[in-house]
Amino acid sequence: MSISPFDHPFLSGLLGDAEVSSYFSAKSEIRAMLDFEAALAKVEAQHGLIPPAVAQRIGEVCAGFEPDLSSLKAATATDGVVIPDLVRQLRKAVGDDAGSHVHFGATSQDVIDTSLMIRLKAVAFLLSGRLFAVSARLQKLDDQFGPNRLMGRTRMQAAIPITVSDRLRAWRHPLEQYRDRLTQESFPLQFGGAAGTLEKFGPNAGEIRASLAQALGLTDEPQWQSQRGRIAEFAGLLSMISGSLGKIGQDVALLAQAGDEIELAGGGGSSAMPHKQNPVAAETLVTLARFNAVQLSGIHQSLVHEQERSGAAWTLEWLLLPQMVVATATSLRQALQMLGTIKRLGTAS
Amino acid sequence: MSISPFDHPFLSGLLGDAEVSSYFSAKSEIRAMLDFEAALAKVEAQHGLIPPAVAQRIGEVCAGFEPDLSSLKAATATDGVVIPDLVRQLRKAVGDDAGSHVHFGATSQDVIDTSLMIRLKAVAFLLSGRLFAVSARLQKLDDQFGPNRLMGRTRMQAAIPITVSDRLRAWRHPLEQYRDRLTQESFPLQFGGAAGTLEKFGPNAGEIRASLAQALGLTDEPQWQSQRGRIAEFAGLLSMISGSLGKIGQDVALLAQAGDEIELAGGGGSSAMPHKQNPVAAETLVTLARFNAVQLSGIHQSLVHEQERSGAAWTLEWLLLPQMVVATATSLRQALQMLGTIKRLGTAS
Amino acid sequence: MSISPFDHPFLSGLLGDAEVSSYFSAKSEIRAMLDFEAALAKVEAQHGLIPPAVAQRIGEVCAGFEPDLSSLKAATATDGVVIPDLVRQLRKAVGDDAGSHVHFGATSQDVIDTSLMIRLKAVAFLLSGRLFAVSARLQKLDDQFGPNRLMGRTRMQAAIPITVSDRLRAWRHPLEQYRDRLTQESFPLQFGGAAGTLEKFGPNAGEIRASLAQALGLTDEPQWQSQRGRIAEFAGLLSMISGSLGKIGQDVALLAQAGDEIELAGGGGSSAMPHKQNPVAAETLVTLARFNAVQLSGIHQSLVHEQERSGAAWTLEWLLLPQMVVATATSLRQALQMLGTIKRLGTAS
Amino acid sequence: MSISPFDHPFLSGLLGDAEVSSYFSAKSEIRAMLDFEAALAKVEAQHGLIPPAVAQRIGEVCAGFEPDLSSLKAATATDGVVIPDLVRQLRKAVGDDAGSHVHFGATSQDVIDTSLMIRLKAVAFLLSGRLFAVSARLQKLDDQFGPNRLMGRTRMQAAIPITVSDRLRAWRHPLEQYRDRLTQESFPLQFGGAAGTLEKFGPNAGEIRASLAQALGLTDEPQWQSQRGRIAEFAGLLSMISGSLGKIGQDVALLAQAGDEIELAGGGGSSAMPHKQNPVAAETLVTLARFNAVQLSGIHQSLVHEQERSGAAWTLEWLLLPQMVVATATSLRQALQMLGTIKRLGTAS
Repeated sequence: MSISPFDHPFLSGLLGDAEVSSYFSAKSEIRAMLDFEAALAKVEAQHGLIPPAVAQRIGEVCAGFEPDLSSLKAATATDGVVIPDLVRQLRKAVGDDAGSHVHFGATSQDVIDTSLMIRLKAVAFLLSGRLFAVSARLQKLDDQFGPNRLMGRTRMQAAIPITVSDRLRAWRHPLEQYRDRLTQESFPLQFGGAAGTLEKFGPNAGEIRASLAQALGLTDEPQWQSQRGRIAEFAGLLSMISGSLGKIGQDVALLAQAGDEIELAGGGGSSAMPHKQNPVAAETLVTLARFNAVQLSGIHQSLVHEQERSGAAWTLEWLLLPQMVVATATSLRQALQMLGTIKRLGTAS
Repeated sequence: MSISPFDHPFLSGLLGDAEVSSYFSAKSEIRAMLDFEAALAKVEAQHGLIPPAVAQRIGEVCAGFEPDLSSLKAATATDGVVIPDLVRQLRKAVGDDAGSHVHFGATSQDVIDTSLMIRLKAVAFLLSGRLFAVSARLQKLDDQFGPNRLMGRTRMQAAIPITVSDRLRAWRHPLEQYRDRLTQESFPLQFGGAAGTLEKFGPNAGEIRASLAQALGLTDEPQWQSQRGRIAEFAGLLSMISGSLGKIGQDVALLAQAGDEIELAGGGGSSAMPHKQNPVAAETLVTLARFNAVQLSGIHQSLVHEQERSGAAWTLEWLLLPQMVVATATSLRQALQMLGTIKRLGTAS
Repeated sequence: MSISPFDHPFLSGLLGDAEVSSYFSAKSEIRAMLDFEAALAKVEAQHGLIPPAVAQRIGEVCAGFEPDLSSLKAATATDGVVIPDLVRQLRKAVGDDAGSHVHFGATSQDVIDTSLMIRLKAVAFLLSGRLFAVSARLQKLDDQFGPNRLMGRTRMQAAIPITVSDRLRAWRHPLEQYRDRLTQESFPLQFGGAAGTLEKFGPNAGEIRASLAQALGLTDEPQWQSQRGRIAEFAGLLSMISGSLGKIGQDVALLAQAGDEIELAGGGGSSAMPHKQNPVAAETLVTLARFNAVQLSGIHQSLVHEQERSGAAWTLEWLLLPQMVVATATSLRQALQMLGTIKRLGTAS
Repeated sequence: MSISPFDHPFLSGLLGDAEVSSYFSAKSEIRAMLDFEAALAKVEAQHGLIPPAVAQRIGEVCAGFEPDLSSLKAATATDGVVIPDLVRQLRKAVGDDAGSHVHFGATSQDVIDTSLMIRLKAVAFLLSGRLFAVSARLQKLDDQFGPNRLMGRTRMQAAIPITVSDRLRAWRHPLEQYRDRLTQESFPLQFGGAAGTLEKFGPNAGEIRASLAQALGLTDEPQWQSQRGRIAEFAGLLSMISGSLGKIGQDVALLAQAGDEIELAGGGGSSAMPHKQNPVAAETLVTLARFNAVQLSGIHQSLVHEQERSGAAWTLEWLLLPQMVVATATSLRQALQMLGTIKRLGTAS
């Protein structure tokens, strides 16, 4: 299937990002879910809740477990979440006695949200690296063309002359701020049990949660299963990144239309006019900026997350957030590529 | 890859729709594109623009042509559209002499927009059938439980008693109107050439366009390459369908929470609480309604489609519309399924 | 107060529209509400439900009634709707005996939704007239400059030459379609009583509703209090109008930036650069298109309108729809003004 | 006029907020603009750019100046911004010689964006206070009812019992985080001159900007006229606040529908059913959450802010941000009021 251009056999060449997408493959999702189950068992053994041998057995099975995907698909259709069937399969693989200890005290949302956080943490690191690369390329353009003259334009009209450095500063400054923000972002464990109270763990609940967070390399925080502000904030940051890159794209497209202040290598061909050099990457940056601005609205709709867990609001996040992550990654990839094609910027003063 | 739950190995069990998605596979897209190229050649031969033997050769090759997808992907990354490379590959397959006549007078957007219309026409027929099925199931519920008493609720409070028929009427009425709308929808050919003027065809342009529309089973209309109102209107209809189904889903979820006026068979299981019967389909209807309401905003942003063709605005449609179609299809599928699980509605009066 | 630029002491010069806004003044809203109450009494008297003298008294009081706005405001804060207090005030003004017959069998939503429809019907007529005026001005530009040469531009790059007529056709065509759509739009009475069943009227309910619709010049339809598709559809049409005008605005702004193919009279001044001629109206068209595209998303969120009446979803419409109407009206006003400033389009061929 | 319920004669009782709205009155806007002009003159005198007596004269006039609003409105219609005419009027009031020094080196955007920041800084302080008040009220509810039993509900179904404290923690925790975020927010001066380069100030530009920021109580930062990330971030925070309050509202509405676990005093009346107690404030919280989620999308669209100043993108912010601020303020006001009506939460255990 190929409903989304991000996953599409040929459109993904333009709009997809293989590196970041790999974190949202079913395989990666399940891998992080199994890491959760293994770490949970290990921590529960450390706290004397399940026998150490059981935890070891669970860990070993998790390490190599490959679930039956068609069973997962059929079960998700009914359950709305993949975890009940995944746990059922995993228990069976672990074996009857030890198997009953799998997933003890946890619930679907613990596994799914934590799996997301494990992967978002890695993705944030990647995006941060790309932001650095784009900034560096902007710096390089500044080194090459900074003193060149550029017509400053306000309200779509020539205003007064500025330098290429002035324009580049407006492009680069927000990206550096976003990079700082990405670096500061924390990625917390979600662990609440059936209704957020860790009711199976009694007074040790806090300690177990802290150990589990540490085992998974995540921040220890109280459950946030119905409090989705952090998802909204992360999504907002993604949309700010693609939005600021969209501004760069729009500027480049406008420079390319005027034609006198920029020289681009390459550019897209046309089926009717082979001579054309379309600023495809620049336009794509605008597209992705507007795409993320649209999706963000849905993420914020999901803040109205009723009671202890809203199937409706939570599922909406699944439809939106992975796309926003990939749109942002593609946007960074395309920006880097586009900036690399700039052969000249401004006019020698 | 599996960025979108609509395409996802296991989430598509809940959120995807295999039947409607098949119209958005790369294979189906390309099939409709090749149908366009074959019909174009045939019509051009009829109008004496290319030799009949060439048109026949083009038609034969198009009938079985399977392009190199990795080449298409690489080219789309540069060109922003798949057509230049598809035409290049097709020309090569047709052969040197005849090949040069492939795609004569057309441009990428003609092929892509028309391919979309060919497929949307089929999809609209399918969705219309599903609307009928949902209506019929609502009628059946009315036959079974219509006279039962239901508490009418306004502003989340009991108001006065109504009948199950009253509630069902409010569920069914909009769906019937949408079905009428879908049936009336026209699906036009897009044919404009490089900049919308069919500049290669001179005074016969109108006739050729009409013949091409007829050959493809589409409506004949002037080019609409930069006028995207019809995309916006179709998307709006999709979102109205999923929105009204979302209202049904919300109502069912609220009935299920109260528990006394509805009896549902099945329902989703929980990994922590195996006894629960979650109204998963009902919640999913709410999710899909909100999803489409979000996406529609981006479709309307695309109405700001600059000049003769906007890469930025057009590409944004690709990221949104197929998902809206599948969200609507899934929504109808889930509504049908959910209504089928209602064992009792209201209380016997 | 002046939270919205549409209502703002000085920004409304740019963004507001006095003529269309007048339909959304509290005075106009209440006027239409009182028309509903008067017509309801009259129709109920015709059907023998209340004494004719009472209906006449209610009609006379409604004709000149001016409610205490501060009381309405205080009551709306508590009740969420203005009607309970308006009816209370009206009953008091009508007098004790007759007063008790005011609003018989109706509910708040009947009055508010019907008041909206009465006014939207008038507004649609106005907007339709403006669409005609914009089309006529485009025709006039075609008469003046149609054969002139214009560079056709695709993907922000020069493609092939077209004529000014070609571009104007792409601008005008959608507007004519929207005008047809506006003309066909029906504006129905909303009449359902407490929970949509007109429970006070027994078997005559249908007849009374039909008489009431006729008395108010509205279409007779079953209650649609929880079925908001028609609101969504009307809002979608508004956004299509402003969207297509936004495309014109974007095109004009791009022409103005290039500077060689358009000559505009007037244009906005700058506080720092008095020489500049900013294409303010063109930019405003883009702004209003994007604004409506955003708001439409919320209107579609409101389709998830739970049970017999959703305070949450309904109130959201109030925050969005009037603004969309005025944004569209302003958009038409600015388009007309902007097109009037075009002194030259294209280059003489 | 009353297009926006936030400004509306009676709907503002429900949806408006007089205290916070006052910061967006034309009077307040202009006051902050005049503060900018006065501070600019003072700082320029300190740096020897204009005579001290002139700066004093400008300061004195600014202190009491009341511009002609109808002139501002007419000029804004043409210029797209109010500043050229405001400066013209102010220069005239200051007098011929001194007047020519008004606004030296500044541009419209400097005044408008800075005026916004001055007022947002005050508003953030107010909102932070209200967040504290809501948190305190939640704490009080916890003191009263914390140990009470509440049915934990997931996916609209009873899950396992929790305590009132558990639910309240999920309500309160995000609000405390938002309060921290609001407190950390910085509000920078915008100062760039015609095209962002402060071209009138030469090497002293940085120093002058720093002095101006200090004089206005704002943070000193490089111009951000085309980099709107900070607007997007602030708007995102607003929407997170209203979103989390919307979750509380939805929870309360659901509790009120079930009826056994909450007791509310007051509630809204109905025109058809005087006995009803509608959870109006709870529903309004949901409305405002969804409203802000919608608007945020437009703010992020504005990140695509072309070149040195985009009239289209900037004007869009004006249509969205003030409404978001008031929606958030109202949301806090309604939350505080609603929580105050809770007479009982949960059932005594």
